[in-house]
Amino acid sequence: MSLTDRKCKIIVDAMGGDFVPINPTLGAINAVKENNSIEVFLIGDSEKINNILVENNLEFNSSNIISATEVIDMHDSPTDALKKKKDSSIVKGAQLVKELKADAFVSAGNTGAMMAASTLLIGRIPGFGRPTIGAQFPTETKKVCTVYDVGASVDSKPIHLLEYAIMGTIYAKVIDGIKNPTVGLLSVGEEESKGNSVTFETLDLLKNSKLNFVGNVEGRDILKGNVDIIVCDGFTGNIILKFGESFINFLKTRIRSYADEGILNKIKALITKNVFKDSLKDMDYQSHGGVPLLGVNGISIIGHGSSSPLAMKNMVLKANDMFQKDLIKKLKEGREYYGNL
Amino acid sequence: MSLTDRKCKIIVDAMGGDFVPINPTLGAINAVKENNSIEVFLIGDSEKINNILVENNLEFNSSNIISATEVIDMHDSPTDALKKKKDSSIVKGAQLVKELKADAFVSAGNTGAMMAASTLLIGRIPGFGRPTIGAQFPTETKKVCTVYDVGASVDSKPIHLLEYAIMGTIYAKVIDGIKNPTVGLLSVGEEESKGNSVTFETLDLLKNSKLNFVGNVEGRDILKGNVDIIVCDGFTGNIILKFGESFINFLKTRIRSYADEGILNKIKALITKNVFKDSLKDMDYQSHGGVPLLGVNGISIIGHGSSSPLAMKNMVLKANDMFQKDLIKKLKEGREYYGNL
Repeated sequence: MSLTDRKCKIIVDAMGGDFVPINPTLGAINAVKENNSIEVFLIGDSEKINNILVENNLEFNSSNIISATEVIDMHDSPTDALKKKKDSSIVKGAQLVKELKADAFVSAGNTGAMMAASTLLIGRIPGFGRPTIGAQFPTETKKVCTVYDVGASVDSKPIHLLEYAIMGTIYAKVIDGIKNPTVGLLSVGEEESKGNSVTFETLDLLKNSKLNFVGNVEGRDILKGNVDIIVCDGFTGNIILKFGESFINFLKTRIRSYADEGILNKIKALITKNVFKDSLKDMDYQSHGGVPLLGVNGISIIGHGSSSPLAMKNMVLKANDMFQKDLIKKLKEGREYYGNL
Repeated sequence: MSLTDRKCKIIVDAMGGDFVPINPTLGAINAVKENNSIEVFLIGDSEKINNILVENNLEFNSSNIISATEVIDMHDSPTDALKKKKDSSIVKGAQLVKELKADAFVSAGNTGAMMAASTLLIGRIPGFGRPTIGAQFPTETKKVCTVYDVGASVDSKPIHLLEYAIMGTIYAKVIDGIKNPTVGLLSVGEEESKGNSVTFETLDLLKNSKLNFVGNVEGRDILKGNVDIIVCDGFTGNIILKFGESFINFLKTRIRSYADEGILNKIKALITKNVFKDSLKDMDYQSHGGVPLLGVNGISIIGHGSSSPLAMKNMVLKANDMFQKDLIKKLKEGREYYGNL
């Protein structure tokens, strides 16, 4: 199935995330075990990486460890860090993709820094003004709904929303194998007369594109499963993402209080937890791994700080999938095709 | 406790909602039974109202039935309807408040038409450029968090967000009895550097106001219970409201599928439903009734189309509460006090 004869070279940020370097290291090693068309490189504090390998009795080719002496942590300002921490795993990792020495970079580190490094160092694909991050929401129908943008930019213009829709469509076709993905525009009503100045202008762009555009959708459509891709500005998308993520916590807290009111409640709460776990298992982001930063001229995947070895492994496998399916090239071609440039 | 010696005259739209005129009629009658400082008027098709009264053996002073021969339905365009259906319950109801012949108007009819009629006929309170609707979200702490605006306008400017915060604060103090309500500004990060052009400018306005402003909050803070009032533009707020409302449906659908997989699952799903009902009982909007349209120079309460008699009753009681506590006057005074005009 591979489009290329050589292995996909993926750099894994060994310093990015809450449990380092153990989780990225385990994730990288397990990904290679699962798919031998991948070659991984661990970037970070080589001493720490070596110690972890020894302590856990892990086999790893030491020439695939790339030393980076600095770490961009969660408190660093992304743009400052880019300038000041030139020898950090994030800056060096992105740089290696830029120089075509690697095919992909995967990190669960500082999200802002990953976005800045990817955008500024690797650069953008011509025709895509803003990179975007999509969030996959579970739906009633068990089909996934991906919302773009959820925070790569906060002041998206109509042309950017069109670009998100194009990137989302190509990603859904190429990576998720959806034949003719439907695209909705997030607004405050289904009628074309409902919306704000950004949605009105975007509506025209989407209607005049070759995308499978279904019109305006509302907040309630995200979880319904009637549309594959929903586009909105990154401000709204980010708020929706965080609000949605918090819902599970809210429910857990409520059920915990319920459980505190006696032994019968405790038992019922335990059963509820069990039902939840079973019926919402596709909501576990660890199994999805991270999210790709689309629109960047190379493969860059950003993971959650708390990424488990499983999440890290899945991020590496996703990067490989994007490489094998030649996603970047298809994004370049698709911009012209869908957007009527 | 009443500030006035006379009864509060409340007009109830007998034609507004999915179950009419029965639900508004029952709601109106029950409200008066519960609080005799209220006098209700039913507005709508007097024949239909009379029939319902007879069929259900209900006592109601026939001189308190106001005839309106037209109905604005859910498919009518609000602005068109206002011009064309002058003898509709919504237009006439708002007009009577405008003419000070009634103290409040309550309707579960076409939301857009209610907003337009209230804003254009009753008029705005000087100093409040846009009326606003707040949505109360349940929280982890069982304290309520009210988000303004959830759809009265879609292109709120920073000054409007300040005004929402002022109205929300006064409402929380006067009606909900919260001493010093905290106000958060919805954004994409807690840091002042995070946000878009609207939030940056609003941040300055809020910081320079006399409100109990706690800074930027994120999507995840809505359900946390750490802030009483959150302000955002009506576009974002409306999407959040509809997204949030859909979450319960999403869960129900998932649990239904789970229940379909065998008898044991069915039992566990039933228990889960029970736990839900108990731990989320404050999420039942029927018990809240409708939401007031704040910023309008009179009391106007808008209900959900599916409002039950209980919801209608609570809307009438809320209108009375707003009247007795002289909310409109306090909003007028507060605009100057909080906003540093």
